[in-house]
Amino acid sequence: MADLTPGSDRPLPALSALSTQGSFAARHIGPRPGDTEAMLAVVGHSSLESLADACVPEGVRDRTPLDLPAAADEATVLAELRERAAANEVFTSMIGLGYSGTVTPAVIQRNILENPAWYTAYTPYQPEISQGRLEALINFQTVVADLTGLPVAGASMLDEATAAAEAMTLVRRAGGGRGGRGADPSAVFVVDADTLPQTLAVLRTRAEPLGIGLHVTDLSAGWPTDLPEAGAFGVLLAHPGASGAVRDHRALAAAAHEAGAAVVVAADLLALTLLEAPGEWGADVACGTTQRFGVPMGYGGPHAGYLSVREGLARQLPGRLVGVSVDADGDVAYRLALQTREQHIRREKATSNICTAQVLLAVMAGAYAVYHGPEGLTAIAARVHRTAQVLAGWLRAGGLDVVHEHFFDTVTVAVPGRAAEVVAAAAERRVNLRLVDADTVAVACDETTTPAVLRLVAEAFGVTAGDEDVDGPASFPVGLRRRTAFLTHPVFREHRSETAMLRYLRALSDKDLALDRTMIPLGSCTMKLNAATEMAAITWPEFAGLHPFAPVEQARGYARLIDELCTGLAEITGYAAVSVQPNAGSQGEFAGLLAIRSYHHSRGESHRDVCLIPSSAHGTNAASAVMAGMRVVVVACDDAGNVDLADLHAKVDAHAERLAAIMITYPSTHGVFEVEVQQICAAVHDAGGQVYVDGANLNALVGLARPGRFGSDVSHLNLHKTFCIPHGGGGPGVGPIGVREHLVPFLPSHPLVETGGQGPAVSGAPFGSAGILPISWAYLRLMGPDGLLKATEHAILAANYVAERLRPHYPVLYTGATGLVAHECILDIRPLTKATGVTNDDVAKRLIDLGFHAPTMSFPVAGTLMVEPTESEDKAELDRFVEAMVLIRSEIEKVASGEYDPSDNPLRNAPHTLKMLAGEWAHPYPRETAVYPVPRLVGRSYLAPVRRIDGAYGDRNLVCSCPSPEAFEEPHPPVPREPSRAQGAPDDLGTTSDVVGAQA
Amino acid sequence: MADLTPGSDRPLPALSALSTQGSFAARHIGPRPGDTEAMLAVVGHSSLESLADACVPEGVRDRTPLDLPAAADEATVLAELRERAAANEVFTSMIGLGYSGTVTPAVIQRNILENPAWYTAYTPYQPEISQGRLEALINFQTVVADLTGLPVAGASMLDEATAAAEAMTLVRRAGGGRGGRGADPSAVFVVDADTLPQTLAVLRTRAEPLGIGLHVTDLSAGWPTDLPEAGAFGVLLAHPGASGAVRDHRALAAAAHEAGAAVVVAADLLALTLLEAPGEWGADVACGTTQRFGVPMGYGGPHAGYLSVREGLARQLPGRLVGVSVDADGDVAYRLALQTREQHIRREKATSNICTAQVLLAVMAGAYAVYHGPEGLTAIAARVHRTAQVLAGWLRAGGLDVVHEHFFDTVTVAVPGRAAEVVAAAAERRVNLRLVDADTVAVACDETTTPAVLRLVAEAFGVTAGDEDVDGPASFPVGLRRRTAFLTHPVFREHRSETAMLRYLRALSDKDLALDRTMIPLGSCTMKLNAATEMAAITWPEFAGLHPFAPVEQARGYARLIDELCTGLAEITGYAAVSVQPNAGSQGEFAGLLAIRSYHHSRGESHRDVCLIPSSAHGTNAASAVMAGMRVVVVACDDAGNVDLADLHAKVDAHAERLAAIMITYPSTHGVFEVEVQQICAAVHDAGGQVYVDGANLNALVGLARPGRFGSDVSHLNLHKTFCIPHGGGGPGVGPIGVREHLVPFLPSHPLVETGGQGPAVSGAPFGSAGILPISWAYLRLMGPDGLLKATEHAILAANYVAERLRPHYPVLYTGATGLVAHECILDIRPLTKATGVTNDDVAKRLIDLGFHAPTMSFPVAGTLMVEPTESEDKAELDRFVEAMVLIRSEIEKVASGEYDPSDNPLRNAPHTLKMLAGEWAHPYPRETAVYPVPRLVGRSYLAPVRRIDGAYGDRNLVCSCPSPEAFEEPHPPVPREPSRAQGAPDDLGTTSDVVGAQA
Repeated sequence: MADLTPGSDRPLPALSALSTQGSFAARHIGPRPGDTEAMLAVVGHSSLESLADACVPEGVRDRTPLDLPAAADEATVLAELRERAAANEVFTSMIGLGYSGTVTPAVIQRNILENPAWYTAYTPYQPEISQGRLEALINFQTVVADLTGLPVAGASMLDEATAAAEAMTLVRRAGGGRGGRGADPSAVFVVDADTLPQTLAVLRTRAEPLGIGLHVTDLSAGWPTDLPEAGAFGVLLAHPGASGAVRDHRALAAAAHEAGAAVVVAADLLALTLLEAPGEWGADVACGTTQRFGVPMGYGGPHAGYLSVREGLARQLPGRLVGVSVDADGDVAYRLALQTREQHIRREKATSNICTAQVLLAVMAGAYAVYHGPEGLTAIAARVHRTAQVLAGWLRAGGLDVVHEHFFDTVTVAVPGRAAEVVAAAAERRVNLRLVDADTVAVACDETTTPAVLRLVAEAFGVTAGDEDVDGPASFPVGLRRRTAFLTHPVFREHRSETAMLRYLRALSDKDLALDRTMIPLGSCTMKLNAATEMAAITWPEFAGLHPFAPVEQARGYARLIDELCTGLAEITGYAAVSVQPNAGSQGEFAGLLAIRSYHHSRGESHRDVCLIPSSAHGTNAASAVMAGMRVVVVACDDAGNVDLADLHAKVDAHAERLAAIMITYPSTHGVFEVEVQQICAAVHDAGGQVYVDGANLNALVGLARPGRFGSDVSHLNLHKTFCIPHGGGGPGVGPIGVREHLVPFLPSHPLVETGGQGPAVSGAPFGSAGILPISWAYLRLMGPDGLLKATEHAILAANYVAERLRPHYPVLYTGATGLVAHECILDIRPLTKATGVTNDDVAKRLIDLGFHAPTMSFPVAGTLMVEPTESEDKAELDRFVEAMVLIRSEIEKVASGEYDPSDNPLRNAPHTLKMLAGEWAHPYPRETAVYPVPRLVGRSYLAPVRRIDGAYGDRNLVCSCPSPEAFEEPHPPVPREPSRAQGAPDDLGTTSDVVGAQA
Repeated sequence: MADLTPGSDRPLPALSALSTQGSFAARHIGPRPGDTEAMLAVVGHSSLESLADACVPEGVRDRTPLDLPAAADEATVLAELRERAAANEVFTSMIGLGYSGTVTPAVIQRNILENPAWYTAYTPYQPEISQGRLEALINFQTVVADLTGLPVAGASMLDEATAAAEAMTLVRRAGGGRGGRGADPSAVFVVDADTLPQTLAVLRTRAEPLGIGLHVTDLSAGWPTDLPEAGAFGVLLAHPGASGAVRDHRALAAAAHEAGAAVVVAADLLALTLLEAPGEWGADVACGTTQRFGVPMGYGGPHAGYLSVREGLARQLPGRLVGVSVDADGDVAYRLALQTREQHIRREKATSNICTAQVLLAVMAGAYAVYHGPEGLTAIAARVHRTAQVLAGWLRAGGLDVVHEHFFDTVTVAVPGRAAEVVAAAAERRVNLRLVDADTVAVACDETTTPAVLRLVAEAFGVTAGDEDVDGPASFPVGLRRRTAFLTHPVFREHRSETAMLRYLRALSDKDLALDRTMIPLGSCTMKLNAATEMAAITWPEFAGLHPFAPVEQARGYARLIDELCTGLAEITGYAAVSVQPNAGSQGEFAGLLAIRSYHHSRGESHRDVCLIPSSAHGTNAASAVMAGMRVVVVACDDAGNVDLADLHAKVDAHAERLAAIMITYPSTHGVFEVEVQQICAAVHDAGGQVYVDGANLNALVGLARPGRFGSDVSHLNLHKTFCIPHGGGGPGVGPIGVREHLVPFLPSHPLVETGGQGPAVSGAPFGSAGILPISWAYLRLMGPDGLLKATEHAILAANYVAERLRPHYPVLYTGATGLVAHECILDIRPLTKATGVTNDDVAKRLIDLGFHAPTMSFPVAGTLMVEPTESEDKAELDRFVEAMVLIRSEIEKVASGEYDPSDNPLRNAPHTLKMLAGEWAHPYPRETAVYPVPRLVGRSYLAPVRRIDGAYGDRNLVCSCPSPEAFEEPHPPVPREPSRAQGAPDDLGTTSDVVGAQA
């Protein structure tokens, strides 16, 4: 910048030197120019470029500048976003099919969706600083469990379609129905033909590689008689059906059970306020979406899918589950429960690769239920139903045939030969109806449907609108009316005024540490700035209000934005094309491997099914490979953490014939730029395999190297890591895949919407979580090619700076040939643990006392901490973190020297709470040491609200919905403070939870 | 609501019974139906209506239902607001005249302007729970002080025009220039003819009733030689001038001082980053606006005006001033300083009626400076200046005459006979230029002006755009280039990345208690819900982006919204018309009294100048009367707090000839519906006077009574009390006035824009703080007539419920004839103070420990607490408050019984801090008692960040800009904990600060 010091005798700079261009990069990147130089000096380099040169192997380095539009300032980017928003047309969508208009209560929009305290939070693996969102999630779980009548609900799934697929594999794992344990592996999964088309598509995608036979059939006649000999291990019932029909499935459920099949019900939660809970009539599993609980349609997502199960299936549940446990004082506290299940992604033994949730959206849906309460939800449902009845009445009075006698919100109408005409007439009135076929139109009502809209619909059908009121019985099957109470917990009645709701949300978020209060130095998770400008557009009605199946001419703004984003991502990664359909990193992996699989199949090489995976890989890689029908073969790593080339060649040779792919991460999960990556790629290609480069660490590559050019065929990217979509407390994630030219035809398609791909659909929505893509689009636009490069260089600098500063205090593992790390560094706690008993868990919890979120724990190496500072942290924050780690090191020293009692010291007792301070103090160190170990903390406003949480206790006493208020009054017997019991025990795996997080 | 319990055998209600109409009222009003009944039972009434009947005197009660549109739901109201927004057209405005385009940094918009933690806060009279916004304000003060080069700056003024008027009266009070103490009262105030027209208008408005002669003259020729004999007590210099000219005022300032006149400089703060500070060349006072520091134009406001003064004038400064002091531990803490000055509104002795500020906007402007730092601000200024130079160059090259050689951002161009044509050509290109006269056009550049816009301007002038760069010297007078550093405090360089800024803002707001965490039961301040839907529209570009002097055809949406709002407010108050120009309650009082004054003058009764004011009145009433040129005559009150009718009649008789007005508050400042109000009005009217009813307590009247019908001629309303504009931490306020038919012609006008009134202008902008009027508009639309009535009834119920519950523990003063209070109640602490030494200050601070904001202290009666719960608090929160007050009463009992040490007990030591808990504990009660006196607090996340603050210390050691970091390191010697020293001493008046607050 020009010298603008007052008193300078130099003339003012010219306008061009005062341009605002590129100024956002200086906001996104933490260190100021002088800081950068000071940090470079510590690292021993004279410039960012020289550091990058030293880090990135020359063969990998790509010096072609990114061909992206130059950076624009924030005001310009907002103006451009408004332009794209204006190119979308927000009609009233009555298309239904799993996406409904809904009113996001303003108090929820402003104080959750637009509040960084919620959206910048990380996955709650550190439960002590996550009590707010854990409570919000347990509210969500209670809503799902109560409404479905099944006692255990997870903390959300990616969408309804994937939830259904997970339900399918879950019941298969469980061996079918209650009486059906050990079902024949060739048993099929029966699917109600009236299932949502996108759910059917994803079921097909997921069933095929696993060899699951799908038997899609009309179940209205009863249990199918044309099943294969092995029978069925499960059935999926749609409730209501995609057609809108509400059927009484009770006899069918009994028949299924009789036949040894488990019953999965894909149910509309809002309808379940009026209809008897599936759990009451035989469902073993329920799945669906919670979108209509106040979450905008957003052109398809993100929304929280749900999954709930009967007693006995809890341990089969994929994804995250929040449970109640106790802390070191015996006080009630929340945590992720049953972490020993699939969610740990146990590599090749895994049956699901799910490692994220849709936390932010689940929090919103749960909050919607808290705000409305059971009466409010029921009233909304009743209004929706009555609205549909009013319309049905008018249509019938106009001589039209309403196809289903029983419905909840969707009226299907026979208009022989006139369907297209009716739909067009509605569109002229800015209303989207669903064209079922040439003779049939369906109209889905929702919370936003007004009588005025109904009149437009009547006009479109050419009938006369009549009375707006309907008396008499509901249009449900007799006996299906709900009789069991739900949401009886006080939380669902205490926050009905906006003031009470606002304070509840504030109180919850105040319990948590998110990026808006501290650095979250999570290796492999790239917790960088989620800028306010990037976030602005997602709540604009023109982006938030679109139905994913709205006619494409209403979504031109989205089309342009998605195209521009994909073009930019392709340029950055060096691929030919990008698909944004995968709505999580794990989905991206799956989609990418499916593309490889499809490619081999298309070439008549369907026998290629071996996937090589280095031992250092993230567990999800292997899980995804299994889901894609591949056999995992592990490649060893050498002492430096790099792929063992000899073993690689041996494995390639051994499996050359059947080699499908290798999955590697670059830079490696150890945070190192492996020099041999091109050799690895070449070896696999030579054997006819494809190379999958996991994009988890792309933040170290942007502008420096392109996977699509250094040897990879396909990668998934994590927009929620490298491209600034906030983590949302554990989702949403977005995991687009980029592929080279030959794989383009195998990118995901969609049964209803043209996506540009012809491969299998992996998500319910054609463009995945389209509603949050403006965030990444804005990031690219704000940074421009120069800013993106600078960000990468600073990410590498920050990691090396921290490594260099901490090296005298903790061994830094895996520093690569040059002694440098990439964008993250691993601190080895194991020698200290061995010498003193202080664990990496103790270090992590003590960091809470010091105001920090813990780094990634025990990934990729057990007993270590992996630190990824990112480019967004300024030098002051990095220095505070270093100071904290050095202080902790000195505390460990005191344990070693005997100055601190090994079982009663600030590390072991961390985090310290206000309650501890206010009570009797029996510890051999003063209270000040507990909470004010460094002077800057004297003004602190945050302490952990609970002491260290006992995970095992919660798993032994599983409670996954809102605990009674009394539970908080009487402390449970304090749990012994044995760390081996409390956390880190093999049957708990608390410490490996970050493995999941790393990919979340 | 219909019975929707699951299992009910009743059929679903019909659609009409499930309507969403009116549902917002149930969110705005706290108590649920069952709660309302329980509360009524406590109060001894069977219905809300019967309670209202019992409270409101029959003669006053107005049973005509409000003729307002029925309530609409939130989604509908947002849609209607979008409609109005769409009717505004946001052109690029280059009109200048004190309003500039600016970029609100997104991190500031989202995390201050859209964050309830900031906008729902109250004025920081309780400094211990206001450290965050006090620090933000001291940043603001530092910005103003540094840039103007004058050491003491206040915490903001209402706008630039009123700041100039305050500067005028300030220097008059101070007796003119340094050598001019005791200037002749007939000395004039010289005003630069190149002053903003709206500033000139407000100066005229304010000067006339006070008998100040204004001498408006072209000062470019030097100090005027045609002054009256008494000379001038001051001069206002515009810098730059309204024309854009930058003149070297140094000689003029010296001449003014020579002549005994004080020098006031109305300066553009952004220009001062490049131009030498006025304080360096002789200014005694500087004033202006900080709007262009990131605060949207908002069609005129709200923005923070500023005022700064040289050494020696600090005690003359009107409005609020934040200062540095220490707490009971000797740690640095912030508080409002010098509360003994005018801001205490010392009734008839007052010289200013200012009792609010524009805190939220000042916080934003200060944050803008923190985020940009001195280099960033200078770069913005340099860019603006270079932009103007580029344009000037093109225009000169095109043969046009640029009128001023020296300018900062505004280029004035001679286009003989063509001005209208040029302006029209620009408008066709969606650019607004300023039509100066038929031959002259001015173009103001700002932070948002791009080269593309400049090219459009060139086209409009018919010249060719040339090179976009200009080299060479700036277009300033030689020697005026700034040479002194500014914003050298670390706070202005430590928060340059968005991450650092976000965390700073979060850390500040975490120190404060606002409505988003607790009830703020402030009598006379009506701290009710500020709903998210109400707040949504104010940041939409179509409302935020309009220049107040934009052509009216671009502001049709605003016109419609303002018209609808005024119509609604007129209906509610029973007046013929309403003006929204006054941008604070005090401004409304002044405008209303001016209308009365003008009315009398218009009837040839200009001798009517006596204003009767009851002794119970808010101090501002008297101050406003003085400002309006009236003599205040105090009317006594009886023991019940009501106007003493005998004294009233006596005073009316005594002053009948000269009686101008009476100002009363209804219900009274004692919270009582006086039965005799109609008699009072009649007596005044009979004597030829006018009745002014202060609308501070309108929240007790809406839907029950209309001042315009029970005898009042004019009232101001506080939109920030009754009509949901948030208090913003101490502003913005909006104080519209309603008048009966005969006063309509005397409503405020504006020199540049038609407002519908012809009276004197009181604010700089034609429609005052137009930018936040959508809030009150939305409130009326959401509540509808029924909801508004219900709100009033619940406000009365809540006050009576609290009074009834607390009566056994504290005497409740002034309960009216029926034993009922209106919408607030006064708890008398004096007997307890007398018996135990525990003061209402102790009670207030102890409430902080209990998680509450204190009630209004010592207004209207010293030694008492006035509680106004409002309708928005639910019963649970009211009960918690009652529980807290009862607990405090029991603690007072322990002091009385000797169980507690009178000088070392939880009341006297309140608030307790984390630092106290963590340190040595030498108090004779346990730590738990300090912070966990009730079980619900065990999960608390908030403690006051500082101990009780010593106000006197800060006033003795006045520091009003950012203290050095070292100040925080070394605690000051602890101050004796004598409450009479610390707070409440006569020379401090800490306890009476709420008098101000009550009207803020």
